[in-house]
Amino acid sequence: MSRRGLFAGGAATAAGALARRDTPPPQPGAQVEPFHGPHQAGVATAAQAHAVFLGLDLLPGTRKEAIVRLLQLLTDDAARLTQGRPALADTEPELTASPARLTITFGFGPGLFEAAGAGSPVAGLPAFSTDKLDKRWTGGDLLVQVCADDSLTVAHAVRMIVKDARSFARMRWTQRGFRGQAAGKTQRNLMGQVDGTVNPTDLDSAVWIGQSGPAWLRGGTTLVLRRIRMQLETWDAADRVAREFTIGRRLDTGAPLTGRAEHDEPDYHRLNRLGFPVISEFAHIRRAHVSDPARRILRRPYNYDEGLTRDGKSDSGLLFASYQADIARQFVPVQRSLAEGDLLNEWTTAIGSAVFALPPGCAPGGWIGETLLS
Amino acid sequence: MSRRGLFAGGAATAAGALARRDTPPPQPGAQVEPFHGPHQAGVATAAQAHAVFLGLDLLPGTRKEAIVRLLQLLTDDAARLTQGRPALADTEPELTASPARLTITFGFGPGLFEAAGAGSPVAGLPAFSTDKLDKRWTGGDLLVQVCADDSLTVAHAVRMIVKDARSFARMRWTQRGFRGQAAGKTQRNLMGQVDGTVNPTDLDSAVWIGQSGPAWLRGGTTLVLRRIRMQLETWDAADRVAREFTIGRRLDTGAPLTGRAEHDEPDYHRLNRLGFPVISEFAHIRRAHVSDPARRILRRPYNYDEGLTRDGKSDSGLLFASYQADIARQFVPVQRSLAEGDLLNEWTTAIGSAVFALPPGCAPGGWIGETLLS
Repeated sequence: MSRRGLFAGGAATAAGALARRDTPPPQPGAQVEPFHGPHQAGVATAAQAHAVFLGLDLLPGTRKEAIVRLLQLLTDDAARLTQGRPALADTEPELTASPARLTITFGFGPGLFEAAGAGSPVAGLPAFSTDKLDKRWTGGDLLVQVCADDSLTVAHAVRMIVKDARSFARMRWTQRGFRGQAAGKTQRNLMGQVDGTVNPTDLDSAVWIGQSGPAWLRGGTTLVLRRIRMQLETWDAADRVAREFTIGRRLDTGAPLTGRAEHDEPDYHRLNRLGFPVISEFAHIRRAHVSDPARRILRRPYNYDEGLTRDGKSDSGLLFASYQADIARQFVPVQRSLAEGDLLNEWTTAIGSAVFALPPGCAPGGWIGETLLS
Repeated sequence: MSRRGLFAGGAATAAGALARRDTPPPQPGAQVEPFHGPHQAGVATAAQAHAVFLGLDLLPGTRKEAIVRLLQLLTDDAARLTQGRPALADTEPELTASPARLTITFGFGPGLFEAAGAGSPVAGLPAFSTDKLDKRWTGGDLLVQVCADDSLTVAHAVRMIVKDARSFARMRWTQRGFRGQAAGKTQRNLMGQVDGTVNPTDLDSAVWIGQSGPAWLRGGTTLVLRRIRMQLETWDAADRVAREFTIGRRLDTGAPLTGRAEHDEPDYHRLNRLGFPVISEFAHIRRAHVSDPARRILRRPYNYDEGLTRDGKSDSGLLFASYQADIARQFVPVQRSLAEGDLLNEWTTAIGSAVFALPPGCAPGGWIGETLLS
């Protein structure tokens, strides 16, 4: 190390040490995600460790005026809680001191538009042959997505939301998820698979709704939330070659079978010695492949694990959360391709499905949904 | 800042910067807790963010030889997984790369001792009038406690343990818990209450079993695991004065009502203007107070939150995990005092209860339980 290096480094780090003493770096729990802005938080936000998705149904007879009051109330809760402040009627204000990157995101299902007397930009998905949907995990008028890096923060925020929504809506489902926390890496799901490598980078074209959508929804997006059960017992019985053939990627690195690193472009034309494609026609990544980046879906999946069912099978899988500007143009073609021939279907089954329009964000003093309902 | 300070600080931090460049600080996920040693990990270990407690029942007819094989197998799993290595029969080795301070701790219930033909050092607790125990959360032959800072790590470890135990035991219950992650602070429970302020500091007298216990159990301890449901709806209806009177501490700082900071010693003799004790005779902290530090229990509680019950009530509370050298001398008197007059009983109900002896740790090549069963 040179004298110059030592001096420069020394001066810089000594200054750094001083600065540190005055303003200690924020603890992870103190980190805050902005609430206000053109888009709602919780979509482009780097995925937090924990999520709860709440699906609510409006009480019978709930009309537009009540929906407005509900959304004003919940927006106010979200604006406060995400910034580490108690909600107005908070009974445990001490539990808000660690926001831990809390985001609270709202979505409207077809039933909310109907109750508000507005046309719905989202509709139920077409039926896919591989689905076995359970009413328990399907549909919903209002989505509240709560994400943070601290489970206690999530639990408290969910509780405040549920309490404040109680006069307007009842809970239809609650889905809890988590992600591994290996920083800077694509998450792995419970099958061990790297999950979410190919996400769109230009969110303005792929995710946020622009000029072609309804004016009130510009800056918003749509969410398809699928509860995908994994048959982990039989997956365990498959060997590594079969698993990698099924996915089209190596399990250890996540690299495509034609490449060496996770983000290498898969070569769908390459053949093996026998003349068959290295990445099978029925491999998951080929079935899910979308050439046009503007048509890619933004995947932000969470694992779920509810332990064992009564018959001793694992009740676990993936909360597949997909955000896109246009469900019919982006999500449906991919899902159809998967339903028609994805080898992974042998071990995965969609048991829940819900669609929501996510309105744009709002400015301070505004509320989520004002572009539609005010 | 003096020249000398600048120089010394500069040199030290420059060297530190160099060292950092060569060996980056380990990511939180890479942190490892030692598995081998005189005590099992997961008791004195600074509590991780997530826990799953598994209660297993041995299959009918399981005898000592099979129990030994089971414990050898599970010990081997634990020794590998906690160090960030795959278990021997690991089907998702990629999920072991982020141990995130994983600990796996084993405990023996009365049924295991019976099956092994050994006398049990633990027995069911006496009945407490305030309990409403549900069989679903009560008892168990074998405890496996899995804790880590990453939920995915916990999920994978649990899955390996469950798979390897399947030929010997069936799952009786699974209890999942979490703690807030405000570093360096006592955790808050879902009532907002600072929970676990007074823990013993000398674990050798209060927690680890010494000369007075059975020889095979020296270096071990006992666990009482209570599932305590909180009636959060009615707790919310109580005002702050009533809550603080109930607990005997301020909700914001956790300070006793007679003090200013969390760790101030409560003054149980101080009277208010009306001549009544400031900390009520029936306040939670007075009922739980133990003067002799050697008789204190080590509390390592986790919150649980299973969302809403079918009738819309919150299904949440505390997994109260108490470790002590002697259940009858340490846990039972406190629990009796609480059952007889703790104001908090108005909002809390024990709905599950289990007791286990936790054998000492083992050396590399050894296995948990060898001091009893080999």
